[in-house]
Amino acid sequence: MTLPTVAIIGLGQIGGSFAAALTKRGLARVIGVTRRATTAKRALEMGILEEAGTDLDEIGAADVVVLATPVRTLLRQIPQVAPLVRPGAILTDVGSTKTEIVEALRRSTSKATIIAGHPMAGNERAGLDGCDDHVFEDRPWVLIGERRKAALLERLVAGVGARPTWMKSPRDHDFKVARVSHIPYLLAYALMGTAEDAIRVCGNSFRDATRVAASDADMVLDFLLTNAGPIRRSADELQARLDALLRRIERGDAAGLRKILLRAGLRRSRI
Amino acid sequence: MTLPTVAIIGLGQIGGSFAAALTKRGLARVIGVTRRATTAKRALEMGILEEAGTDLDEIGAADVVVLATPVRTLLRQIPQVAPLVRPGAILTDVGSTKTEIVEALRRSTSKATIIAGHPMAGNERAGLDGCDDHVFEDRPWVLIGERRKAALLERLVAGVGARPTWMKSPRDHDFKVARVSHIPYLLAYALMGTAEDAIRVCGNSFRDATRVAASDADMVLDFLLTNAGPIRRSADELQARLDALLRRIERGDAAGLRKILLRAGLRRSRI
Repeated sequence: MTLPTVAIIGLGQIGGSFAAALTKRGLARVIGVTRRATTAKRALEMGILEEAGTDLDEIGAADVVVLATPVRTLLRQIPQVAPLVRPGAILTDVGSTKTEIVEALRRSTSKATIIAGHPMAGNERAGLDGCDDHVFEDRPWVLIGERRKAALLERLVAGVGARPTWMKSPRDHDFKVARVSHIPYLLAYALMGTAEDAIRVCGNSFRDATRVAASDADMVLDFLLTNAGPIRRSADELQARLDALLRRIERGDAAGLRKILLRAGLRRSRI
Repeated sequence: MTLPTVAIIGLGQIGGSFAAALTKRGLARVIGVTRRATTAKRALEMGILEEAGTDLDEIGAADVVVLATPVRTLLRQIPQVAPLVRPGAILTDVGSTKTEIVEALRRSTSKATIIAGHPMAGNERAGLDGCDDHVFEDRPWVLIGERRKAALLERLVAGVGARPTWMKSPRDHDFKVARVSHIPYLLAYALMGTAEDAIRVCGNSFRDATRVAASDADMVLDFLLTNAGPIRRSADELQARLDALLRRIERGDAAGLRKILLRAGLRRSRI
């Protein structure tokens, strides 16, 4: 059985980790394309892929092409990359918002099968320094597109330990991740802003809630700036819930609060 | 050198952990007073103290008396406990809010030296199940009162690995912990409420931000219901910061956002 060829464009934390995970598990022959020759060289030295360079034409031979550059870079690259993917191959991405990316991919009139993707995984280290071939294990990897044409991609995603999680539309994805990812990031920054000199007595609740504030700023900007609508709506929902809690505290509604706390606790313990 | 005697009233997670930490490190002879005889018996079996029972009169011999029952219970206990502490001994507590407790302690006209306390430590397990003699290590332990009379308590606090952290007033404490502890708890509950079906794709940011939602509800109610004012003010500050971030996202202010994100990241990485 010949191994499928996977071309990954952009060897940042997620692109590099996917390359490493596929290579170490022997699931694919991975080739990498980066903007800078030094990054390609470093990836080769790390042994996380078989070939790496700066020439986009290399992707023509791939069965799966993965766009793994930052979202705003990726939006600019799509018109250039899409025509190079061979017809019948799968063109996917790992961007953390989907509406703008899928629109750009559809506009590109590529002959490839377009399956948008988003692995819900990562750590706080930017670039190849954050490369970790275990990072996808037991994490959801959202996929959007025609599932019956995505068998190979689904196999690779499951092969690196992730849980392929199909969603019905980019919009559905963007609203969900706004609620369970982008808002927690925004809260982390807002909390850091209000902490001031109280930070020296912060407990674990604050440490946990602000951990992501130390993330790579450019990666965060990518999803914040390409998901403004869903983020605003989710923030409004959150503020309404917070206000309801505050009003109960102010009127000393112990019984009502207790019920909300217990229900949230039960749901949290099931995650 | 004779060991000091420390009486701990209430053997929940924090009282039990302090008993265990003092006993295991040989820093004090610990006696425990609990409402239920079964709790006293269990603590004795665990070997975390030397004596335990249900009789409050036992505290008369102690050099340090620690009120470690839940805040709202403790407020009711103060008038009964304070007169039993011998003059010159230290009467302290481990409650997570301070204004109401210190007022009640002052009203009690105890002859003891009153030093309010709050170890910024703990885990999600309630009662003696959460007992952990390492839980205070490298955590702040807030102290409020006359420092020159608190040498023994300060030595014990440092002895269990905590960092004695003096604050100037109960009010100062309550505003600080509202910002770096109570608000993160409220956000965790609000986030659990908005997550709905998106929870299956939640990433680490959401997991981290909601971890404390699984805490013991009664412990949380204790600090929420005794700190309404500072919590409201901190929540308003947070919402103002969140709104400012949202407005920048909506007008696509990448440069302005980047500056805020980098500053927050730098401060977070120093914690």
